[in-house]
Amino acid sequence: MKKQEKIIVVGAGLCGSLLGLRLAQLGYTVTMIERRPDLRKVEQTAGRSINLALSNRGFAALEIAGMKEVALEIGIPMYGRMLHDPQGETYLSPYSGRENMSIFSTSRTHLNQLLLEAADKEENTTLIFDHTCTEIDFDNRIITIEDNNTGKKETISADYIFGTDGAGSVIRENMFEQGLMDYHDFQKLSHGYKELHFPPLSGDQYAIEKNALHIWPRKDFMLIALPNPGGSFTVTLFLAHEGAVNSFEALDGPDKIEAFFKENFADAFEIMPNLQDLFETNPTSILGTMKCSPWLAKDRVLIMGDAAHAMVPFYGQGMNAAFEDVLVFDNVLVQCDGNLEKAFAMFEEKRHADAASICELSLDNFKEMQADTADPDFLRKRQIEMELEGSDSVAYYSKYSLVTFREDLTYSNALRRGRAQDQAILSLLKEGALTEEMTVQEKYDLIEERTLVLLQDLK
Amino acid sequence: MKKQEKIIVVGAGLCGSLLGLRLAQLGYTVTMIERRPDLRKVEQTAGRSINLALSNRGFAALEIAGMKEVALEIGIPMYGRMLHDPQGETYLSPYSGRENMSIFSTSRTHLNQLLLEAADKEENTTLIFDHTCTEIDFDNRIITIEDNNTGKKETISADYIFGTDGAGSVIRENMFEQGLMDYHDFQKLSHGYKELHFPPLSGDQYAIEKNALHIWPRKDFMLIALPNPGGSFTVTLFLAHEGAVNSFEALDGPDKIEAFFKENFADAFEIMPNLQDLFETNPTSILGTMKCSPWLAKDRVLIMGDAAHAMVPFYGQGMNAAFEDVLVFDNVLVQCDGNLEKAFAMFEEKRHADAASICELSLDNFKEMQADTADPDFLRKRQIEMELEGSDSVAYYSKYSLVTFREDLTYSNALRRGRAQDQAILSLLKEGALTEEMTVQEKYDLIEERTLVLLQDLK
Repeated sequence: MKKQEKIIVVGAGLCGSLLGLRLAQLGYTVTMIERRPDLRKVEQTAGRSINLALSNRGFAALEIAGMKEVALEIGIPMYGRMLHDPQGETYLSPYSGRENMSIFSTSRTHLNQLLLEAADKEENTTLIFDHTCTEIDFDNRIITIEDNNTGKKETISADYIFGTDGAGSVIRENMFEQGLMDYHDFQKLSHGYKELHFPPLSGDQYAIEKNALHIWPRKDFMLIALPNPGGSFTVTLFLAHEGAVNSFEALDGPDKIEAFFKENFADAFEIMPNLQDLFETNPTSILGTMKCSPWLAKDRVLIMGDAAHAMVPFYGQGMNAAFEDVLVFDNVLVQCDGNLEKAFAMFEEKRHADAASICELSLDNFKEMQADTADPDFLRKRQIEMELEGSDSVAYYSKYSLVTFREDLTYSNALRRGRAQDQAILSLLKEGALTEEMTVQEKYDLIEERTLVLLQDLK
Repeated sequence: MKKQEKIIVVGAGLCGSLLGLRLAQLGYTVTMIERRPDLRKVEQTAGRSINLALSNRGFAALEIAGMKEVALEIGIPMYGRMLHDPQGETYLSPYSGRENMSIFSTSRTHLNQLLLEAADKEENTTLIFDHTCTEIDFDNRIITIEDNNTGKKETISADYIFGTDGAGSVIRENMFEQGLMDYHDFQKLSHGYKELHFPPLSGDQYAIEKNALHIWPRKDFMLIALPNPGGSFTVTLFLAHEGAVNSFEALDGPDKIEAFFKENFADAFEIMPNLQDLFETNPTSILGTMKCSPWLAKDRVLIMGDAAHAMVPFYGQGMNAAFEDVLVFDNVLVQCDGNLEKAFAMFEEKRHADAASICELSLDNFKEMQADTADPDFLRKRQIEMELEGSDSVAYYSKYSLVTFREDLTYSNALRRGRAQDQAILSLLKEGALTEEMTVQEKYDLIEERTLVLLQDLK
């Protein structure tokens, strides 16, 4: 079932390599262009990858390309958030009241390697590394690529082009600069991040619980840690860029860095022997939300993944959303009977609102993490939701579960229902309508009734 | 009073050439880089310049560089809007109730030539044309420029760099791509534009009134015409890009173009012998609003003019705002005792809100032009304002006058007061509180009282 159309995929990161693989499996001739060297041959420089939490939506997309099982093999399940308070006490907050619901700490590099390997094995793929796309002629679908080592330029043309070249997408920026965008809106977050590290204990032992996503929430900033195979953790500090205190700007020397960690993350500080080196070496990176439209230029050039909808990382959905783009495109292509031009035209319509929803949810979560999580109503809500999710007699899913574990729902639907539920429970708690004496079924019915009223009001 | 600092100005359009001239006058060594060929030597290609209406703010800025008089000489005063209704009837709506208040139809090219000529005459300027800035190293203030004809690249460094390279600014885009922007927000307008032309009658006679800005307002679209020396008019059609009717998309052939003009602009159609040629030859260009911040990168690279705040053209203030940027910078530099680094740091703080205000006012005017201008309250308001402006006994200025003729007020103040006045008059009219029998003074006092209440409420 070899097909005629030639396709270029610019950017062979996670989204691009899955997309290229899938398109090749469908019979298209695919050329994948990647700015960086071949991940499979070059040792990775650390410091710029927020650790990735792969979850249901990502797995569903990997599955259509036959990559779900290998991805599961390299992931470490995390069953909940392990919260570390300033005194070093820890509390596990499960992701779901249901048992065995987890997200998977996954190495970006390893997953990308596996996807590239699979794409490379397909007959009809060509992988070009270490080449930067410098120009694009949208009308004629010709891209100019420059060899990073020699500076030599060449052009490649195709019938269709995908831009999956990430948050700083060259394809998107060229669309913008050539006047092909209706809007192009980047908002930087007040907070940036820096990658740090917990090394393994002797014998590859984990210094803290392996199967959890560790969080040190401190209102204005936080530290998180995700487990790696071999006993280490990739650690990320989220902190304001600017400000007299509690900011990257303020941490301008080893003494201040040490004092900051000792004061706020005493238990983590104990297991970070290389803190000062990493703090100095690793860059402070920015975070932001990129919204733009249209994603399609001149009918046959389409951006996807972070290139189209970069988001802040606080819902752990950036990679999952990018993979889900590939799944949605695959579905759209089936709906269009394999007609690529129709699928290109239809993709954004199918996907735009969902991308906007997960961008919004990710920002919400940033605010929620900063809010007072010790608020009694908030804690009570979480408790009730855990009880409902843990019960076999009702089919309840919290907002987090709707977004993370219900890949059958769109992000937009998860957002709408999730917000309505939150609002319903909080208002019922305020009214004193949810009492300890009620059965699970009674609580569920009351919450569901109020939720449906709120959803109706939204319409 | 030669100064040590070397300055590069990237972009020698209107804003850049006035800025370069002024900086040279202040004693700095200035290198001006322009992507296009030298305007003074090359014949201009038409089709991409909305005609420019120079007014008080622009003149005030030109004056500090000694360029006001020469600019006045090449301008054609326009005392008001000449409205053309569908039947070909015309109505003059003066810009102000005061006599002799006018804005000046000015050739972009001619004004730019004069500014470049003056800059070139300064000893300490270097003008480099036909070179494109391709890269910028913000930390070390080194720009790479490429010779458009040979492709040869060279680098230039300076102590300070200005980016005055227009709406598509390369300096701004590099700031954004290098993560130096907190936000970078472009919103395209639904409507685009195409430049057209009324040729002179025999003997360089003007086919329609010379000293007016002609408008054919048609709710969803409009035509405007500004006079040129020699009897011709530069004409601009503003029309939606897309749509089944009344859009550039819909005008896809000579028959439809002719029918559209005959139906909507019958009197203009009569004096456009070359309509079809120009419609085909001249590009359809986009319009939009670009907001971003910060304008300053790494303390010593600053964007200004359209590069920092491109706006839609419906208040005729784009060039005036860009020129006023130069004036504001000049004032800031005086406040900083000539310390450039301090002035760079202070400029955006002084200017950002005003730039945002004129961007907003420009979009408002687009909506206002599309609204029903036959609304009796709106007409009555205009009538009262003309009466007040025309009276020597009160000092009234309409919103348009505050923005256009009161260069002593910031755009932000003009916006606040202008909106409050509009709201005051409209609500007083609704209440029946403004009657024919009242004296000018009584009307003024009532409007002023209500305006002050509204302004107070805003605080």
